[in-house]
Amino acid sequence: MVAELISVGTEILLGNIVNTNAAYLAEKCALLGLSLYHQSVVGDNEARMEDTIRRALERSDVVILTGGLGPTKDDLTKEVTAKVFGKELYEDARTKERIQEFFNRLHSKGKITRNNWKQALVPEGAIVIENQNGTAPGLIVTGEEGTEYEGKRAILIPGPPNECIPMFETQIAPYLSGLQPEGIYSCMVKVCSIGESRAETMVADLMDAQTNPTLAPYAKTGEVHFRITAKAKDEKTAEQLMAPMVQELKNRFGDYIYTTKEEVTLEEAVVHMLEERHMTVTTAESCTGGLLSGRLINVPGASSVLNEAHVTYSNEAKERILHVPHEILVQYGAVSEETARAMAEGACKVSGADASIAVTGIAGPDGGTPEKPVGLVYIGCTVKGKTKVERCCFTGNRQKNREYAVARGLILLREMLLEAK
Amino acid sequence: MVAELISVGTEILLGNIVNTNAAYLAEKCALLGLSLYHQSVVGDNEARMEDTIRRALERSDVVILTGGLGPTKDDLTKEVTAKVFGKELYEDARTKERIQEFFNRLHSKGKITRNNWKQALVPEGAIVIENQNGTAPGLIVTGEEGTEYEGKRAILIPGPPNECIPMFETQIAPYLSGLQPEGIYSCMVKVCSIGESRAETMVADLMDAQTNPTLAPYAKTGEVHFRITAKAKDEKTAEQLMAPMVQELKNRFGDYIYTTKEEVTLEEAVVHMLEERHMTVTTAESCTGGLLSGRLINVPGASSVLNEAHVTYSNEAKERILHVPHEILVQYGAVSEETARAMAEGACKVSGADASIAVTGIAGPDGGTPEKPVGLVYIGCTVKGKTKVERCCFTGNRQKNREYAVARGLILLREMLLEAK
Repeated sequence: MVAELISVGTEILLGNIVNTNAAYLAEKCALLGLSLYHQSVVGDNEARMEDTIRRALERSDVVILTGGLGPTKDDLTKEVTAKVFGKELYEDARTKERIQEFFNRLHSKGKITRNNWKQALVPEGAIVIENQNGTAPGLIVTGEEGTEYEGKRAILIPGPPNECIPMFETQIAPYLSGLQPEGIYSCMVKVCSIGESRAETMVADLMDAQTNPTLAPYAKTGEVHFRITAKAKDEKTAEQLMAPMVQELKNRFGDYIYTTKEEVTLEEAVVHMLEERHMTVTTAESCTGGLLSGRLINVPGASSVLNEAHVTYSNEAKERILHVPHEILVQYGAVSEETARAMAEGACKVSGADASIAVTGIAGPDGGTPEKPVGLVYIGCTVKGKTKVERCCFTGNRQKNREYAVARGLILLREMLLEAK
Repeated sequence: MVAELISVGTEILLGNIVNTNAAYLAEKCALLGLSLYHQSVVGDNEARMEDTIRRALERSDVVILTGGLGPTKDDLTKEVTAKVFGKELYEDARTKERIQEFFNRLHSKGKITRNNWKQALVPEGAIVIENQNGTAPGLIVTGEEGTEYEGKRAILIPGPPNECIPMFETQIAPYLSGLQPEGIYSCMVKVCSIGESRAETMVADLMDAQTNPTLAPYAKTGEVHFRITAKAKDEKTAEQLMAPMVQELKNRFGDYIYTTKEEVTLEEAVVHMLEERHMTVTTAESCTGGLLSGRLINVPGASSVLNEAHVTYSNEAKERILHVPHEILVQYGAVSEETARAMAEGACKVSGADASIAVTGIAGPDGGTPEKPVGLVYIGCTVKGKTKVERCCFTGNRQKNREYAVARGLILLREMLLEAK
């Protein structure tokens, strides 16, 4: 089954917002086993929208439209879709009720404008999808027998991501899945401590030989994610198909695998390892300036392993807060193996934490020298009194270099926790 | 002149990467005064790509294609474009030389594969654009007189953002600008301390009355940006057209305006204010966990105003590091006005900084109670011994609530610095 995405709205068309919905929906559709050949973006213009929808219906079975379902007269997606399918709009009593309820929950009753009732209009014969997070319902319109787009489907979803994503996840995805003869199931194996090209080389034979399940790599900052996807009649059969591939990846990557769960992040895996070991961690950051502790504290419940963290940007702060010896800073400089080591060890001492990560480097754009170029970062890690320091040369801009340093810090800690096992 | 964007590549089509190039290019094209009605995404498939390019050339004057210029046989953008325009490819000596130079700079000489020379092939008559950051050149192909696409243009740009953006900025934008009878110039007025809807209401009359220059608002986290755009024969005339509008915004928003420079961020404006006042700042973060200091240290040269920062996640750390009185934590709790105040004041004291921002709150998803719901954040700010605390109720998820808290912290500091003037 061929699906196609149309994003409606001037803000996306003119680049005021990045089209993250399209990436989300495309990835989900691919996972559902739909073939995707085209995406398009069109503004709030009736003629161009009609043209775009017609063309999509000609070449695809399912056209997913996002945006343009708001209450203003600029919002035309529903009107144009109904016209293309030759359907009238009528006021749906249940939707009207839900809009009223939504407003009652959020606002005083007086605030509903006449515009809002436009959102209760739905094309005849459409499946109406309730919106838990807004007033515009989702809609599924199917071409009637004997009409131009017989059996073709248009799926209309509100544009705001906090409405679009939950609606797709809970209601549209199961619907699309039901249209497919076989289900598509997938799982994720997330790998760190190894570069993208080496990781791919290690499984090149599996990727070449793939039919069902298939294996696809995705490079992330400091990580590689492998998605295994199987077509099968049910979840159990899919799991049986995927299990040998998961096992093969485990055989090849071993401890490089930090999770086989889609939703687990690297920081979550690290926090979980610390929890299991009843250990606490702290950080000592210079150029990353708090981004590393910020990432650890992304994890809900991080308070069980992290009590405090230190940003020591000046040399004076490194000395006073972390007790980095003055002589080390003078002799080797703030960006040095010795300083990174002293920061990591000092952070453990002053906080009483069992482990620490320290980062000191030259993020750029200025401050580099021939001996210590921009991108040079020392990452120190202490686990139960043992310290390792890694010298990294990143080649990104200030922001990218700091992101890489944060990822590498988490990975180094993970490696040392594994060794200390 | 009507322009249209085509993004080529399976990774974008299937949602493995978000199409940030499209947003960047669309925004830039709009600023250059080009009309944009369509964007599309197509995979590395010859027939579908040809179809998409032909359709775009039929309805637009300039078609900008990104991606598909790599060295592999999947990369087809150049080949298909040449075919559509009825042009042959030939090897461009200068491009071949540049590819060789690029490799010499990056790698040992041995590493060029035969594939790479594919990138030296260019369509006859094309303008070749040098790529400072990669091997694939940019290309501008124009339809010959008497052919199907006479006078239409296809502009081919490499897909990686670090190649696409500098190439567009330095070479494509001036080229496109030269095609236009009048230039398009713009400037930005960035506003904080005021909500989006109120800010828009305050300039509704200016937006309604707009012709040249025009005024458009963009909501950012905690900020509103107003872009003023003028059409004019040269930059000086444009500035004369825009000046009264800028002045009018200054009259209406006054100190809410933190910059009129496109490239200046809120954190940069705050760091600059501190520099001017010869003041230093520190932070004391709980739920934001280092993101606030991380954002301040985004600013190159932040070391002149920030020496250290504190992440005190546990109560014990708040007491020991920031000297928050034990009784306050017991009586009012960690998420309270009193604790935020003590954190802000304590941070100044322990670090000797002239100013501080403290954040303590419940970012979610758990930990909320009826009295202290998820999203409740107290932000304290001390400037030269005077402290203010603000109670905020954010309604996003954990990540969004933390981002809002960081933005609000910076804005509160800015407000107090202005007051202390």
